[in-house]
Amino acid sequence: MLTVDEATRRVLATVHPLPAETIPLPEALGRVLREPLYADRDFPPFNRVAMDGIAVAFAAVAAGQLTFPIERTQLAGQPPLPLQQPGAAIEIMTGAALPPGTDTVVRYEDLILTDSTNGTRTATLQVPPPAPGHNVHPRAADRRQGDLLLPAGTLLGPAELAVAATIGATTLAVTRRPKVAVVSTGDELVAIADTPLPHQIRRSNAYMLQAAAQQAGALVSIFHFDDDLAALQAGLPPLLREYDAVLLSGGVSKGKADFLPQALQEAGAEELFHEVQQRPGKPFWFGRHPQGAVIFALPGNPVSTFVNYYRYAQPWLQAVQQPAAATPPPTYAVLTQEVTFRPRLTHFLLVSLSSGPDGRLLATPERAGGSGDLASLLPSDGFLELPAETEYFAAGSVLPVWRFR
Amino acid sequence: MLTVDEATRRVLATVHPLPAETIPLPEALGRVLREPLYADRDFPPFNRVAMDGIAVAFAAVAAGQLTFPIERTQLAGQPPLPLQQPGAAIEIMTGAALPPGTDTVVRYEDLILTDSTNGTRTATLQVPPPAPGHNVHPRAADRRQGDLLLPAGTLLGPAELAVAATIGATTLAVTRRPKVAVVSTGDELVAIADTPLPHQIRRSNAYMLQAAAQQAGALVSIFHFDDDLAALQAGLPPLLREYDAVLLSGGVSKGKADFLPQALQEAGAEELFHEVQQRPGKPFWFGRHPQGAVIFALPGNPVSTFVNYYRYAQPWLQAVQQPAAATPPPTYAVLTQEVTFRPRLTHFLLVSLSSGPDGRLLATPERAGGSGDLASLLPSDGFLELPAETEYFAAGSVLPVWRFR
Repeated sequence: MLTVDEATRRVLATVHPLPAETIPLPEALGRVLREPLYADRDFPPFNRVAMDGIAVAFAAVAAGQLTFPIERTQLAGQPPLPLQQPGAAIEIMTGAALPPGTDTVVRYEDLILTDSTNGTRTATLQVPPPAPGHNVHPRAADRRQGDLLLPAGTLLGPAELAVAATIGATTLAVTRRPKVAVVSTGDELVAIADTPLPHQIRRSNAYMLQAAAQQAGALVSIFHFDDDLAALQAGLPPLLREYDAVLLSGGVSKGKADFLPQALQEAGAEELFHEVQQRPGKPFWFGRHPQGAVIFALPGNPVSTFVNYYRYAQPWLQAVQQPAAATPPPTYAVLTQEVTFRPRLTHFLLVSLSSGPDGRLLATPERAGGSGDLASLLPSDGFLELPAETEYFAAGSVLPVWRFR
Repeated sequence: MLTVDEATRRVLATVHPLPAETIPLPEALGRVLREPLYADRDFPPFNRVAMDGIAVAFAAVAAGQLTFPIERTQLAGQPPLPLQQPGAAIEIMTGAALPPGTDTVVRYEDLILTDSTNGTRTATLQVPPPAPGHNVHPRAADRRQGDLLLPAGTLLGPAELAVAATIGATTLAVTRRPKVAVVSTGDELVAIADTPLPHQIRRSNAYMLQAAAQQAGALVSIFHFDDDLAALQAGLPPLLREYDAVLLSGGVSKGKADFLPQALQEAGAEELFHEVQQRPGKPFWFGRHPQGAVIFALPGNPVSTFVNYYRYAQPWLQAVQQPAAATPPPTYAVLTQEVTFRPRLTHFLLVSLSSGPDGRLLATPERAGGSGDLASLLPSDGFLELPAETEYFAAGSVLPVWRFR
């Protein structure tokens, strides 16, 4: 039986970058950029005034001048006309381009303005500026024209979209969304609008997987098949052709109605593994269709489905959108209670997470009634990955954590 | 001038829960539940078979019986008919309801099945079950009918939606989305599709705020006003009446074109504060319209806008959807380099974050060219909050961190 590491390796070996598409900038939040974006101008594009006040030539200050006649006022957005008299000043606002002939800004707080009866205005420095360039954000101080701002592969958040807006990128080439089919199987499952008989339950895994895959950026459709080989044989082939990934839950154990592996292989899917040395979720089946979807056939117990989705399927969905995301650096958390787990299986332990006052991420095990205990997911924020070869984990052990919140 | 804590208190004092609306379950991801949801049945609703194998009466095993004739097979989803003969077994699948007359499941791995020529089938135990109830997930083991599963105020993620699906909640009462108007001001700003003159730049803050507020669940519209009192007097009143929050950037310093505080007050807005002891973002103006919006008038430098949005506006947007989110427990991170900051202002220090192998969240300061350096946001994941009364922060200091990724 495969180790978790080997299963991970085989899952990520099927990653292929999805095609790009071009969309308007305001719709690109959360998408992955597929073209490099360069500075169209220097950042800032001009010597930018950083404080409201007056612009002067520092040479005049250095020569001992403290009082400056004000020639005019320049607001942000107005063209920077040159200073007429070397010993004069221009009253100026934050965001304006520094006028030629000036090199320094003295803010209002550091001067006194006087209006004289003949209509002229003067500024007297109370705190002379210490050096040329004071309160000026010089042209090209942050980035130069032509600098790479956002490499291809960047996940686009609010700051990245602001940078794209600054350079006038009204549309952006981004990875198209993964198309995901979520399939529930199981004759014991009824639709959520139905009232189950005493031995039936409602389909909940499909809604869980739909929501989780949407959070990972996917476009998701939901399907249900009964535990019936003919239904699977008819229903699976179109899904394997038309979707990037098919997420199934249930039907992969070795029970009498577990037709999924057979039906998948008859539909042309190649089995890449079946069963992993892990709990929960040992019967996980993974494969791919040569011309189509990758298939995550997850065990049907809700905790198994959930944990396996976050451990294998979500990294795949992220990686096909952003290949660099395939192997993110792990996040570590500190176990707050001792845990013993004897089977030689990697154990995914549900935990709630909190931030300790020493900056450590603390992981507290949540009572779980087993892999069928859907409600045990509610207080949990993620799961620790306890390696198979260790039985006893002392309080204070530091372990990799997979977050789902 | 207000401290950051007092500014926070005044912002959160304006929080009022938004009304609820009822929407279909598959659309409720990321929304906040406004009704308590209770278990409609026991969890599990029946004694649920947890392994594929045979169901037997443990009393027969305890009496020394090792070989069991198999009466029939029961799949998941089939009604549990009673065992006919006390010493017989029913072959049974995971997810099925345990048949009356049986109390224990022996998995395939622990028995040998033999088909005889007369068509009967027997199972011989290789590993007898240790106790009654083995491999059975008993009815009500996880939750009882009537138990509170999801209290009002729960943020709905994939696990919560699965629980709601299980109890047949096809629609859910959730907080309606906040309606947010994002307004950029500044005559130096041109549309992103335009080519700026040398002293102009493109509007980027509006796209940043739009994206950030969308991530916080808001429905966002974008507006732009020139630095012109008449334009603000005409444009602001409808926004203050029709939106839950108005996010402005620029126009709140003390420059000659900073008409915003005046225009807001003329439009009926009450100033709750102007200026906070912080850097970046000191000129932050905050107020509310008595019958309408709360107004976050953020300084226009992009880093100021960004940091103030995450420090004040996003918690407000979360709290009006989920009142319990108003004061989340802080997250702490460990400063990796010493930092000196002399002004008696709370300093929001841009940092990149990583998870150390000891489970600590590590915060590394990012070079920032000042509050105008938009590109300095790109490598940053959040900001540390350095208290105003301290000048020197040694490497290893633990400080509250605000994440934007």
